[in-house]
Amino acid sequence: MAYNLLKGKKGIIFGALNEQSIAWKVAQRAVQEGAEIILSNAPIALRMGELNKLGEECNAPIIGADVTSNDDLVNLFTKSQEHFGGGVDFVLHSIGMSINVRKGLPYPENNYDFTHKGLDISALSLHRVLQTAMKMDAINEWGSVLALTYIAAQRVFPDYNDMADNKAYLESIARSFGYYYGKKKHVRINTISQSPTRTTAGSGVKGFDGFISYAEKMSPLGNASADQCADYCVSMFSDLTKMVTMQNLFHDGGFSFTGVTQEVIEQMEK
Amino acid sequence: MAYNLLKGKKGIIFGALNEQSIAWKVAQRAVQEGAEIILSNAPIALRMGELNKLGEECNAPIIGADVTSNDDLVNLFTKSQEHFGGGVDFVLHSIGMSINVRKGLPYPENNYDFTHKGLDISALSLHRVLQTAMKMDAINEWGSVLALTYIAAQRVFPDYNDMADNKAYLESIARSFGYYYGKKKHVRINTISQSPTRTTAGSGVKGFDGFISYAEKMSPLGNASADQCADYCVSMFSDLTKMVTMQNLFHDGGFSFTGVTQEVIEQMEK
Amino acid sequence: MAYNLLKGKKGIIFGALNEQSIAWKVAQRAVQEGAEIILSNAPIALRMGELNKLGEECNAPIIGADVTSNDDLVNLFTKSQEHFGGGVDFVLHSIGMSINVRKGLPYPENNYDFTHKGLDISALSLHRVLQTAMKMDAINEWGSVLALTYIAAQRVFPDYNDMADNKAYLESIARSFGYYYGKKKHVRINTISQSPTRTTAGSGVKGFDGFISYAEKMSPLGNASADQCADYCVSMFSDLTKMVTMQNLFHDGGFSFTGVTQEVIEQMEK
Amino acid sequence: MAYNLLKGKKGIIFGALNEQSIAWKVAQRAVQEGAEIILSNAPIALRMGELNKLGEECNAPIIGADVTSNDDLVNLFTKSQEHFGGGVDFVLHSIGMSINVRKGLPYPENNYDFTHKGLDISALSLHRVLQTAMKMDAINEWGSVLALTYIAAQRVFPDYNDMADNKAYLESIARSFGYYYGKKKHVRINTISQSPTRTTAGSGVKGFDGFISYAEKMSPLGNASADQCADYCVSMFSDLTKMVTMQNLFHDGGFSFTGVTQEVIEQMEK
Repeated sequence: MAYNLLKGKKGIIFGALNEQSIAWKVAQRAVQEGAEIILSNAPIALRMGELNKLGEECNAPIIGADVTSNDDLVNLFTKSQEHFGGGVDFVLHSIGMSINVRKGLPYPENNYDFTHKGLDISALSLHRVLQTAMKMDAINEWGSVLALTYIAAQRVFPDYNDMADNKAYLESIARSFGYYYGKKKHVRINTISQSPTRTTAGSGVKGFDGFISYAEKMSPLGNASADQCADYCVSMFSDLTKMVTMQNLFHDGGFSFTGVTQEVIEQMEK
Repeated sequence: MAYNLLKGKKGIIFGALNEQSIAWKVAQRAVQEGAEIILSNAPIALRMGELNKLGEECNAPIIGADVTSNDDLVNLFTKSQEHFGGGVDFVLHSIGMSINVRKGLPYPENNYDFTHKGLDISALSLHRVLQTAMKMDAINEWGSVLALTYIAAQRVFPDYNDMADNKAYLESIARSFGYYYGKKKHVRINTISQSPTRTTAGSGVKGFDGFISYAEKMSPLGNASADQCADYCVSMFSDLTKMVTMQNLFHDGGFSFTGVTQEVIEQMEK
Repeated sequence: MAYNLLKGKKGIIFGALNEQSIAWKVAQRAVQEGAEIILSNAPIALRMGELNKLGEECNAPIIGADVTSNDDLVNLFTKSQEHFGGGVDFVLHSIGMSINVRKGLPYPENNYDFTHKGLDISALSLHRVLQTAMKMDAINEWGSVLALTYIAAQRVFPDYNDMADNKAYLESIARSFGYYYGKKKHVRINTISQSPTRTTAGSGVKGFDGFISYAEKMSPLGNASADQCADYCVSMFSDLTKMVTMQNLFHDGGFSFTGVTQEVIEQMEK
Repeated sequence: MAYNLLKGKKGIIFGALNEQSIAWKVAQRAVQEGAEIILSNAPIALRMGELNKLGEECNAPIIGADVTSNDDLVNLFTKSQEHFGGGVDFVLHSIGMSINVRKGLPYPENNYDFTHKGLDISALSLHRVLQTAMKMDAINEWGSVLALTYIAAQRVFPDYNDMADNKAYLESIARSFGYYYGKKKHVRINTISQSPTRTTAGSGVKGFDGFISYAEKMSPLGNASADQCADYCVSMFSDLTKMVTMQNLFHDGGFSFTGVTQEVIEQMEK
């Protein structure tokens, strides 16, 4: 179903890698809802080539950007302003990576160079995007910015490692910048805290299968899928949600407010 | 703008009193989005007569129900099932009243008969509606139930009096029933925590003007209006938000996560 | 170990039933720390006779009070003022009962007379105690009031039934009254959210064993015991915590901020 | 008053600078309660010389450590183990500094080198301390670690700048490491979220006066002082609070759960 919810809106989608990516689904849904978009990802991700397919499907230019580089972001927003002849109405930040996770360093043994690098990519990148956009006045009045996060920002999921701290930092940036950008241009900034999802990024987390099955059993509606997340993002980019800002929105089938379920109790008694 | 977001959906709207009511706006927006609705309110509210106007405008039957009466609710859902030839897809609960507030009894001097009566109307009514609906199987698979609430459930706003405790209880019901109805029929249940709004109910709260102006100064986007709340409700009734359940969703221009603003600090320095 | 932390302080302990009760342990620890106390419980609990043993051990008068009766509470505070020759410095509220639980009515099928009665006993009782005390000026400057609660007020534990809503309401009263009594007399009011504990009350909850073993596995330090809870209460009654008020304090070995543990994941994979 | 609450306990106090420092007061109170301590601060802070006075008063060795240097921390814990002939029972982390604040760069214009440096000092330092301690087994069973934080981690206080994000990250570390150290050695880790306090660090924040007076008006018990914070820390280091872990504990006279007060409303109406 399409509703023309984003008709006339322009946006930038960060982080689509392949068909499993949430950002991929968001791009498709946004276009289906009438938006025009630009796709962006890290140069290394672009070289993998799959993004071209999405670009064609969505009639969307692909502009590479290392989100830890101010210059790259200036370049991205310059091209975005040229392409659209003005600012954008929405931005999706679906970016995260922990080198400590990749290297298999458990949380108490994290390497701090890795930690800084992971923070730069996973969290400070949102600040950089917003700082650049604000300086260049590249987001329109009442624009909507979303970043994807995970409930590990609130509660410990041991294998999530330093990504938990990164997500807590990311959510804090959303609030802090939400204040400033809200005051200045009514731009609203929120995070969506999504169920564990079988994406390339998600699958990198150790013990992901036990994780995802536990979450399924602990969610009265089950885990939310990437497609459903895209639906939700579209509603948050639309004009129906203009006064929602600085929030962390759980999109998780009820996981976040479920203490235990019958299924988990039964499993415990085995 | 209308998007046909609720095309084919049926719903019940509780609590529209007059044009200022949030429920009134939600009714209008839901119909504009393609829904068919039934309006319900307490017998005494119906006698005031304004609701007829809305009923005509929305082509909606009006079915009176005292939400503290099981019989009235059975009658309402029976008629609703007849009228729609089946279950409903959404329900709005916009009901609240504190007799302690009306009688001017400050919180520490509350009368407990009044407290029980207020709880029955303002909070247990949601349980009653859901219990009746569940028994009669009157809400369709993946239905969406919303109840309006206020941030006094989390933080003290002294003049809000025992409505704070009622709203805390209401939000707890949304979680508890959200679990059971989610498991049983994928019905999702959420509360929307709205900015202070100049409705007939809102205006009854002592010191409401200082209240609303403080909230305005403390919200980076300003206070959310009743019209904007209706937009948000529509998005929550739609299929775009199917995996959001058991949540309390702040619709308040950022008030909930703002500790202080420049304007408030300046006012403090006067 | 005793530290004389409560030397010279007087208090009232509600809810000691037998040696398993948290209130029983708090009474013993408070006296050990130098406090003088009064014990109170419902007339029916007094008739069971065990409380006399504690009264003798603690050299504490036992004054029966139905906490749903204003008269009983006036009587209690009158006698307390006579006995101590003045106000009290601390109060423990460890009271809770759900008739819906006792009658085996699942949450969606709750009977509302039972619900009102359970709320009256489990939550409104705190308001009644504080209202009576405030009217009679029966709590001293900087007094400390604690009520025991459970995390079901925040997240759904299905078998906890309507006690979840009662606890949400109780915690809201602690905040609301904490505001008023704080302003008026620097009385601080907090709730302690304790691990599931094998008391007579706790054991009445269906599926309590699966519950407690899940909580044990989900708490990095394990479940907190009744004795440890008594230690914590003593610290909250002492002068070391004078500026803590209107808080809900988790005393649960880390359960509340643990999303999952290795043990639970392993159990899931079985 | 002293209670011998920390008799036989050893601890390390980071961050005492001068008599205004919360860490200074905690050091004094800990010693008064029977603890033996080591004082640590950055080399530059040591050169200011005031710490010697505290060292003499507390009979405490002073061991300099740059908390962003693994080597310095290894040296500190090595000397600590020598001095005490074993591990420590408590640690206070009272460390924070934002170069963006110092340089007067508003949040949306932050410099990312400054941001990383500030994070390293203010938040990652806690991880470093804990990682080093865990590797060297330098904290005893059931040890207690506290870090000081501020409510800007949850809500925006615009002048608090990137320290808000640092504190959100710090609190996440407390949870994450609390899980691992709790499992491994029953070490508990918590943060205390203190009222704004007139310390050298606090006073550096722009608009601090409006800030502190707003907080005073918004706290039913008024702002908590540094002395009162020291009392609270002592209770958290003691054996009375062994099962409290992974928590963020507000020590703020009720500010955190107060939505508005009569005084603030009145000020708004001026």
